[in-house]
Amino acid sequence: MNVKLISIGKELLLGEIVDTNSVFISEQLSIYGIEVSKKIVLDDNYDAIKEAMKYEFIDADILILTGGLGPTDDDVTKEAVCDFFESELVLCDDVLQSISSYFQRRGRKMVSSNLKQAYFPKNCKILHNPNGTAPGFIIEKDNRTAIVLPGPPHEMKPMFSSYVEPYLLKRSGKKILTTNINTYGISESELEYRLKPLMAQNNNLSMATYANFGEIRVRLSVCDEKNDDISEILSQYTLKAKHLIGDEFVYGVDCDNMQSALVKLLIEKNMKIATAESCTGGLLSKCITDVSGASQVFECGVCSYSNRIKEKILGVDPHTLQKHGAVSEQTAREMAQGVLELSDADIAVSITGLAGPGGGTAEKPVGLVFIGVATRKKTIVKQCNFNTLNNKSRESIRRHSQLEAMKLLLDVINEQK
Amino acid sequence: MNVKLISIGKELLLGEIVDTNSVFISEQLSIYGIEVSKKIVLDDNYDAIKEAMKYEFIDADILILTGGLGPTDDDVTKEAVCDFFESELVLCDDVLQSISSYFQRRGRKMVSSNLKQAYFPKNCKILHNPNGTAPGFIIEKDNRTAIVLPGPPHEMKPMFSSYVEPYLLKRSGKKILTTNINTYGISESELEYRLKPLMAQNNNLSMATYANFGEIRVRLSVCDEKNDDISEILSQYTLKAKHLIGDEFVYGVDCDNMQSALVKLLIEKNMKIATAESCTGGLLSKCITDVSGASQVFECGVCSYSNRIKEKILGVDPHTLQKHGAVSEQTAREMAQGVLELSDADIAVSITGLAGPGGGTAEKPVGLVFIGVATRKKTIVKQCNFNTLNNKSRESIRRHSQLEAMKLLLDVINEQK
Repeated sequence: MNVKLISIGKELLLGEIVDTNSVFISEQLSIYGIEVSKKIVLDDNYDAIKEAMKYEFIDADILILTGGLGPTDDDVTKEAVCDFFESELVLCDDVLQSISSYFQRRGRKMVSSNLKQAYFPKNCKILHNPNGTAPGFIIEKDNRTAIVLPGPPHEMKPMFSSYVEPYLLKRSGKKILTTNINTYGISESELEYRLKPLMAQNNNLSMATYANFGEIRVRLSVCDEKNDDISEILSQYTLKAKHLIGDEFVYGVDCDNMQSALVKLLIEKNMKIATAESCTGGLLSKCITDVSGASQVFECGVCSYSNRIKEKILGVDPHTLQKHGAVSEQTAREMAQGVLELSDADIAVSITGLAGPGGGTAEKPVGLVFIGVATRKKTIVKQCNFNTLNNKSRESIRRHSQLEAMKLLLDVINEQK
Repeated sequence: MNVKLISIGKELLLGEIVDTNSVFISEQLSIYGIEVSKKIVLDDNYDAIKEAMKYEFIDADILILTGGLGPTDDDVTKEAVCDFFESELVLCDDVLQSISSYFQRRGRKMVSSNLKQAYFPKNCKILHNPNGTAPGFIIEKDNRTAIVLPGPPHEMKPMFSSYVEPYLLKRSGKKILTTNINTYGISESELEYRLKPLMAQNNNLSMATYANFGEIRVRLSVCDEKNDDISEILSQYTLKAKHLIGDEFVYGVDCDNMQSALVKLLIEKNMKIATAESCTGGLLSKCITDVSGASQVFECGVCSYSNRIKEKILGVDPHTLQKHGAVSEQTAREMAQGVLELSDADIAVSITGLAGPGGGTAEKPVGLVFIGVATRKKTIVKQCNFNTLNNKSRESIRRHSQLEAMKLLLDVINEQK
C-alpha cells in the first residue's frame, strides 16, 4: 500500500513551527507495516494542493492530508480535495449541530465563518473532532483514498487513533498489537543484533527503535491474519525480547520515560526520594516532578552549586572538598548522605560533575561525573566518563547524568526487593 | 525566486527523527525575503530523487537537497543529482586530501567507502564540511540550481551559513542585515499591531515572529540595494521597534533566551541568585544553569515539595502554612526570604502553585501560582492565574511559571539600577 503525507500550512513552510504531525503519523503507520513513501509540505493554496494530489496519486493509494480545515478564507484543503474527487460540498446538519454546541459549551458565540466548517463532500465519511471545530473526512474513488485531518496536533492525534487506525486495520484485514520495551544504556546496533534471532524466527513480528539520548524505545508489533489471541503471542515475544536484550538494560514496558517508571516504582514501594544536584542544577528534580503525582514521593531537592552551600545545607565536610574537590567520589557520597539526612527520605541521589564547556583539567576533564545513591543501609557511587560521548555538549552531559542517575536509582530500589 | 526543499532519508519518513533542517533553512531563507514554496521528504531512492527533481524543477529555480551524502551504498543523492544535470562524477584530489586528514585528526582509519565521498559532478562548486566527511555542492545549468548539503544538522547548519547564504546574497545583489528583539508577556497579534506603523513606513524592513510559550522573538531584517551602511539603519529601526512594543515587554536584543539574559545581567551587576521552587520542582534552577557560566551567579536552589521541607530548610512559619496554605502569597514571600537568608545571595526567587492536573479546588484552581522575589531591601509577590491559558497542561503551567519568574527577576534587577 503506497501512502503519502501532505501537510498544509504557511507556518510550516516558513519554519515558524516544526511538523510533528507527520512524524506521529509515520510512526503509527509503521505499526501496520505501512512505510510512508513521501511527505510533502504545501502552502494553503488551492491549485497547489490539487496539482500535488494529481501528481502524487499517479502511484499513491492513500494520501493523508493535514491542515487547512479552519474557518477562514485561507483554509482551502477541503475545497481542493472535493474538487479533485469531482464531488460537491453539501451542508451536514449533524456537524452544524456539533459545532454550535462546541461553542455553547465554551460560552462563545459561533460566527458565520464557522458555517463553512459544516460543509463536506457528498459521500465522504465524516470524522468527528472532539477537541475543535474542524471535523475531518475520508473520501474514496477509483481505488484512491484521501484522509483529511485538522492541523493542530491535539486535535489530529486523537482523531487518527479513533478513526484512521481502525479504518486502515479494517482495510488491511489484519489484526495488529503493539508493545514498547524501554531500555537504557545499550546501543541501537547492539539492540538490533541481540534481537536478530527473535526477528528471524517469527515473520509475524516486526520491530522499530526510537532513540533519545541514552534511552531507546523498542517497539514490537505482532500482525496476524489467522490467530485470534495475538495478545498472548505478543506477551511471549515481549518476554523473550527482554531476555535477549538483558534485564540490566530494560527499565520498563510501555513506560512514557524513565522518570515515569521511577515515580511509579517509588509509589509502589511507598518510598520517598530526595535529590542533591550540582552540575545538573535541578534537571533531575525537574524531570521527576514532570510526572504528575510526583508529590507523593518527592520530598526535596537541593541544587548546591557552590561549595559553601554543599557544606552549609548538605553538611559536606570542608576537608573532603579541600582534599578531593567538589567533583569527586567522596563529595558525591557525602552529598547523597547529606540530603538523605536533611530530608528524612528513604532514598537520596546526588550528582556532581563537570558539564562544561569550561572548567575541565587533564585530571578532571569535562564530562567527568559522579553519581551517588544513599539509603539507610548503604551508599554507592558511580563514576561516569561522559567525555567519551560523541556529543560532549553541556546539554548532552547534563542529560546523560540525569538518565544515569535515574537508572542507578531504579537498580538500587529493585535490588532491595 | 521559487525555492523548494527536498530532505532525503528513510528515518525521516519512518518518523524516527524530526526534520529540523528544513525548519532552519526556511527561517534563514525568509531573512532574504525568500519564501519556500514546497518541502518534500523522500527515501534514499535514486529514481525517486531524480523523478522529484524533474517534476519540481518545472517551476522551481532552486532546489535545496539535504541528506544522503554518506559513504554507504544507500546514499545516492549526489549520484541522482549528477545524473539529472547530465554531468559526470570526477575524483577531487582536494576533497580526498581533506577527508583523509579528517580521519587522521581523529586517529581513525579511512575506509574505501569514504573514497566515494571524494567524487563530485564536473563543474560543480564544492562546499567544504569542517564537521564531517561529506562535503556539499552547488550545481547550475539552464537557470536551474541544486544546492546539496549533508543531513546531520551540526554539519549542515554551519555550511548553510558559510556558503549558501553568501551565494544567495551574491545572486540577489542585495545587502541584508538582521536583528532579533526578545519579548515576553505580549501576544503575537498585539506585537504585529504595534509594529504596523513602522512596517508600513519602511519597505526595506521586514519582520517575522517566532513564539515559544510566552516568549516571542521578533526578527527584523533590513534589505537595501543602495545604502552601504545598513547597520546604522537597522539600529534605528530596532530602537523604534522597541519603543513601539513597549519597554516592559522587551527583555533583550539578540539573546538566546530569557535565562541567558538573566545570567548576563546578574554577572554585569555582580549579583548572586538563589531559588526556592515548589510546583516547578527545579525547572527554574535547571533553566538558569543551562547557561554556561551560570556557576558565577547561581548560589543554590531548593525544591521544597513538602511542607515539612518548606519549614525545615526555608524556615517558612508553620502558622503561615496552616493559615494560608502552601499555595499563597504569604508562603511565596517567606520561601523567597528564607532561601535568601539561607544562601546569602543578593536576590532570591520563589515559586509555589498548582501545576495540576490534580489538586485544584474552587478557591485555588489548578494554574494558580505565586511568585516571590526577595532582595535585601524588599520582597514582592506576584499572583498568576494560569487557569486562563489555552494550554492548561502541567508542562504549560510549569513553563509559564518559570518564564514569569525570570521576567520578574529581570524587572526587579533592572529597577535597582
